[in-house]
Amino acid sequence: MTLEAIKWGGRKLTILDQLLLPLKEEYIDVTSVEDGWVAINKMQVRGAPAIAIVGCLSLATELAHGRYSNASEVVSLVLQKLKYLVTARPTAVNMETAAKKLTSFTKNLKNEGKSAEEIVEEVIGWCEKLLEDDVTTNVKIGKLGAAAVLNHIAGGRKARLLTHCNTGSLATAGYGTALGVVRALQEAGRLEHVYCTETRPYNQGSRLTAFELVAEGLPGTLICDSAAAALMKEKGIDAVIVGADRVAGNWDTANKIGTYQLAVVAKHHGIPFFVCSPTTSIDQTLSGGADIPIEERSHKEITDVAGTRIAAPGIACWNPGFDITPADLITGGVVTETEVIVPPSATLSKA
Amino acid sequence: MTLEAIKWGGRKLTILDQLLLPLKEEYIDVTSVEDGWVAINKMQVRGAPAIAIVGCLSLATELAHGRYSNASEVVSLVLQKLKYLVTARPTAVNMETAAKKLTSFTKNLKNEGKSAEEIVEEVIGWCEKLLEDDVTTNVKIGKLGAAAVLNHIAGGRKARLLTHCNTGSLATAGYGTALGVVRALQEAGRLEHVYCTETRPYNQGSRLTAFELVAEGLPGTLICDSAAAALMKEKGIDAVIVGADRVAGNWDTANKIGTYQLAVVAKHHGIPFFVCSPTTSIDQTLSGGADIPIEERSHKEITDVAGTRIAAPGIACWNPGFDITPADLITGGVVTETEVIVPPSATLSKA
Repeated sequence: MTLEAIKWGGRKLTILDQLLLPLKEEYIDVTSVEDGWVAINKMQVRGAPAIAIVGCLSLATELAHGRYSNASEVVSLVLQKLKYLVTARPTAVNMETAAKKLTSFTKNLKNEGKSAEEIVEEVIGWCEKLLEDDVTTNVKIGKLGAAAVLNHIAGGRKARLLTHCNTGSLATAGYGTALGVVRALQEAGRLEHVYCTETRPYNQGSRLTAFELVAEGLPGTLICDSAAAALMKEKGIDAVIVGADRVAGNWDTANKIGTYQLAVVAKHHGIPFFVCSPTTSIDQTLSGGADIPIEERSHKEITDVAGTRIAAPGIACWNPGFDITPADLITGGVVTETEVIVPPSATLSKA
Repeated sequence: MTLEAIKWGGRKLTILDQLLLPLKEEYIDVTSVEDGWVAINKMQVRGAPAIAIVGCLSLATELAHGRYSNASEVVSLVLQKLKYLVTARPTAVNMETAAKKLTSFTKNLKNEGKSAEEIVEEVIGWCEKLLEDDVTTNVKIGKLGAAAVLNHIAGGRKARLLTHCNTGSLATAGYGTALGVVRALQEAGRLEHVYCTETRPYNQGSRLTAFELVAEGLPGTLICDSAAAALMKEKGIDAVIVGADRVAGNWDTANKIGTYQLAVVAKHHGIPFFVCSPTTSIDQTLSGGADIPIEERSHKEITDVAGTRIAAPGIACWNPGFDITPADLITGGVVTETEVIVPPSATLSKA
């Protein structure tokens, strides 16, 4: 079974509270846009695709349970709620993109002379499609990625993978991007083992990816971020597979801090490095990675763990949330829902 | 000032309790071999050289405050206490090496017909020399290492360094090995900045190295282990400098997990990589790194932090305590107290 972090049925929305993971598995009801905003803001849901989906479905459930006297009232309500949702996490570009699209979609419905009921139904349908499309996209990425990984493995042997951060059911509508490839390999009977990094400082690997692996019975092992090179040397890793926060037009990729380091050590060991990204995360307006701004995050993420100070008081920190992996290190390729593109500069050869 | 973790004066031994660091700076009295054993076993003191020194000085203080009727009584006491000290941490080779040397030294004294008082004095002197020699050795490593680092920097500019784990006053008798090089550069007015990794899973970087940097006012910044490659790309690092648990005859080096990964990314960025090791840690009987056994440590180090479970329950872990950096990646060289040796296979060129 696939872990379901976003449940939508009977026009009701329930989400897995990721703040309680991995120690408690508790679902919470999201009955309004206000609830959705809080869930996104408090990071009860995180992961770029998941944020947009939960935001939009919180609007869908609120609309479904309201009463509206005319089309104008519905449209102005939708527009106002979308503006509000975007403010929940200003850096999450996906909610902003979805809000823009849904705003123009809703305005068009009014221009077409649709009634209040019709607009409500079509907006709900649009939000439901966001959820469905994300899963469909992920399943396609999983299939294409699995085939691309297996291309590098001789003789029908099963794959040994290394992944970073969380790109699974907890970051998407379900199935996942890089973790979708892991799932696809498992479904095809071709997964031997998947290693996941802790992903300091926020531990998305040890808290979330490890949780998904255990929950679904996938053969997995957790390692420290610093052990990746030793792992590649000792355990015969076939591929490194990660997600993407944003991909530039030349295939340079912004992703969780540590991704660039994994790409460097994978290249050194002659191991193909794959980036999994829906086409919606590829930004052709950016000519290269240098154009992608890197957010520096709170030092508390490094100095404190689970509310306890671990680092020496007074020490300065450098805590970039992301790094840029240049296209030439993406030797396996960028896996989208339509194709696998190996950047022309990326060549795979053992150091 | 240099942080003094092992204090010896008036034949009394006091050590900084490293279990309480970085939040509390508390010294404890070590008045007997039993106290010494407990301090080593509980890891109130750690670091290969420091363990041997505290063990031997705990014997010295016990001898100094005892009364003995004849030489045989002293000798059998010393031999028995040394055997016991070795059991405090079976993997710490330095205590075992020191015990072997001191055992034969003590037996010789008896064979030479020395009295009980003479033997006591000479054994105490031997232990004091262990402390003094370690500091002398470290200061020499610091000077040679600083000069070697500066050889790679053009135009009198100050050095920007990256270090891993803890190799400072808290792991040695004082001054430190890799951190000794940092101190020597600071004393020479040639240190711009030193970055230290967290060093998961036991956080010797964020707890101990960061503590030393703050305590001595050295310009330092803490980063996550996964951010090292991004740091090298963004911050213009001049050299990576680490310690060694054991160096083989061909210069392959066993050190804290993550060292090999740093060496790979340093090589990729054309940054010289230095290993600091007293000659006593070089084991010419080992022909290469493959001969060095790697200890796998408790999974709890990864899954729990400060007594709180952070990883998903049920996840498997791989937690090697050390890794092997092959000689060809030690592009700066191995720095001992007598010379800097660049392995013939190690060439520095930007990827």
